[in-house]
Amino acid sequence: MIDPTPGKRTELSSLGEFGLIKHLTDSFVCEQPSTIKGIGDDAAVIDYGDKVTLVSTDLLVEGVHFDLAYMPLRHLGYKCATVNFSDIVAMNGTPRQLFVGISVSNRFPVEALEEIYEGIKLACKRYKVDLAGGDTTSSVHGLFLSLTVTGEAAKEDVVYRNTAKENDLICVTGDLGSAYMGLLLLEREKKVFEADPGMQPDLAGFDYILERQLKPEPRTDIIELLKTVGVKPTAMIDISDGLASEVLHICEDSGLGCRIFEDKIPLDAMTIAAAEEFNIQPVTAAMNGGEDYELLFTINMNDFEKVKDLEGINIIGHMTEANSGVYLATNNGPLIQIEALGWNHMREEE
Amino acid sequence: MIDPTPGKRTELSSLGEFGLIKHLTDSFVCEQPSTIKGIGDDAAVIDYGDKVTLVSTDLLVEGVHFDLAYMPLRHLGYKCATVNFSDIVAMNGTPRQLFVGISVSNRFPVEALEEIYEGIKLACKRYKVDLAGGDTTSSVHGLFLSLTVTGEAAKEDVVYRNTAKENDLICVTGDLGSAYMGLLLLEREKKVFEADPGMQPDLAGFDYILERQLKPEPRTDIIELLKTVGVKPTAMIDISDGLASEVLHICEDSGLGCRIFEDKIPLDAMTIAAAEEFNIQPVTAAMNGGEDYELLFTINMNDFEKVKDLEGINIIGHMTEANSGVYLATNNGPLIQIEALGWNHMREEE
Repeated sequence: MIDPTPGKRTELSSLGEFGLIKHLTDSFVCEQPSTIKGIGDDAAVIDYGDKVTLVSTDLLVEGVHFDLAYMPLRHLGYKCATVNFSDIVAMNGTPRQLFVGISVSNRFPVEALEEIYEGIKLACKRYKVDLAGGDTTSSVHGLFLSLTVTGEAAKEDVVYRNTAKENDLICVTGDLGSAYMGLLLLEREKKVFEADPGMQPDLAGFDYILERQLKPEPRTDIIELLKTVGVKPTAMIDISDGLASEVLHICEDSGLGCRIFEDKIPLDAMTIAAAEEFNIQPVTAAMNGGEDYELLFTINMNDFEKVKDLEGINIIGHMTEANSGVYLATNNGPLIQIEALGWNHMREEE
Repeated sequence: MIDPTPGKRTELSSLGEFGLIKHLTDSFVCEQPSTIKGIGDDAAVIDYGDKVTLVSTDLLVEGVHFDLAYMPLRHLGYKCATVNFSDIVAMNGTPRQLFVGISVSNRFPVEALEEIYEGIKLACKRYKVDLAGGDTTSSVHGLFLSLTVTGEAAKEDVVYRNTAKENDLICVTGDLGSAYMGLLLLEREKKVFEADPGMQPDLAGFDYILERQLKPEPRTDIIELLKTVGVKPTAMIDISDGLASEVLHICEDSGLGCRIFEDKIPLDAMTIAAAEEFNIQPVTAAMNGGEDYELLFTINMNDFEKVKDLEGINIIGHMTEANSGVYLATNNGPLIQIEALGWNHMREEE
């Protein structure tokens, strides 16, 4: 996976640092009026006039956040960019500039970096974001990606996590759990391949959940849609760590509780089929899977009529006072307390 | 060096991801009026009114950019922050917010991260910068730091690299080559220690060059000083890769040549003494050493009188037409073409 074009291998060291950055970024054109200066100086210069600047940053590590055994480099580039755009969207803003730091060992040829940048370029084009800066350095081991995205919003449009109110309705976009099922599928086929390299991966019929894992899209369309119908969410977050974790963020930060209804959580048929194959509950994939990059937001009850029939939005519950706790009302009756799964996978140094 | 308090070791995994970020950043307070929202949402929210937003980002890798054998973690945190501030200063702007991504393996205890954050906090306090976001993730190997700093400037104050004019005077701040001599000294003592762990490092009398390597400061004072005397540089860059590399950036980007005079390059007495000990030319340390984080800038000749007696600024040459080339006029006569040293140290994967 790190030699995208077998037979063609340009050593990183043959280009030199400045040559490499120039080589990788030459074909990016800054088109946003707000990008006064992009790559090529000590800092990018961005002009948002009297709007606010949104900034989000992310660090992605090979072997922790992605596995090059099944993540094509172009998809990796695309996904790194779009999941950062999603953070700006989750503030009800528009992503405008992207800054990319890549740290690689010489295990990677220049062509591998080109593939990553191709994916970044696709994402930038699709979402009209300028690549405005970056950094390429060597590493002793593996591939590290550092992404920073800046976005703009009118000050009064920004939506935080901590501003949900009691009785607000809780909405999610798209469907949940699909990216996680895609991941399980890819991991299974990787193991099959490792056991017998002659085996072909059995991914047929699972295009949707694979695409959800490999090529997530930020829901810029939803924030446009909500603006069109005149609804401003009272709180919003994107679903990167699973519905449970994000619901808890909104509840804890807003000082409230909530009820989520299992039968309202949107699940795609393929997610359900894959979950059956893996013998897990589909709702578990939705609650704890993560990487869906859908939006979780709350709206005032008075906006119910405006939102209830919008395509791509499902109302899954409501906010309560804090003492009522944070609960999932399951299909077969009992309330289950929603808990976040911890981040307890610190790796052993090899 | 990664166990700052021997006997006290809290495993990273004991805190969980959100617990860890909260633990490390709880004592940072956002004080800048422009920081509308810092840590704790999908993105920071920054309001520069009708000014421009400057953004600079940097990726630092253990074993490539720093060596924990002689770089105390607190200094590492301080230096990571200040060298990024320096990029904003080099645009003639003021750093305001910092975003920190740290990726560590479980070789590091929580106390190691606390030390890094202590250093970051010192830098933020000293330069009045808000820690406004970040990310802590696990890595398979080693320590990676990703820094993004945003800064502000009035639109008309921003100074680029590519706007030097023929006959402009070339200035540098402080003295050069000292950070590099500090590095050589630390590397030598590391080797001595590795050969015989009973040996004490022999660093006495070299405080200044060690501090230059371990604790560089951005020259915010100089941009204030220049504003006070009413001088706006025509082009500016900070000296991170050595004078040669930075001079070439300004010349190439501005489409000009230059003459630098060896005898005008400011060198500290300790740098000269250390260079003699290591049997290298002090001017080589200044030209190719790097990490001084001084400013290199050009001014219009008409500003000569305003600048010539300013403390901390030396005029070292002038810009020429492109055909005259980029040359260093040495003390003993001959012109030497200035060339950048390449980035040809891509590491072998171990």
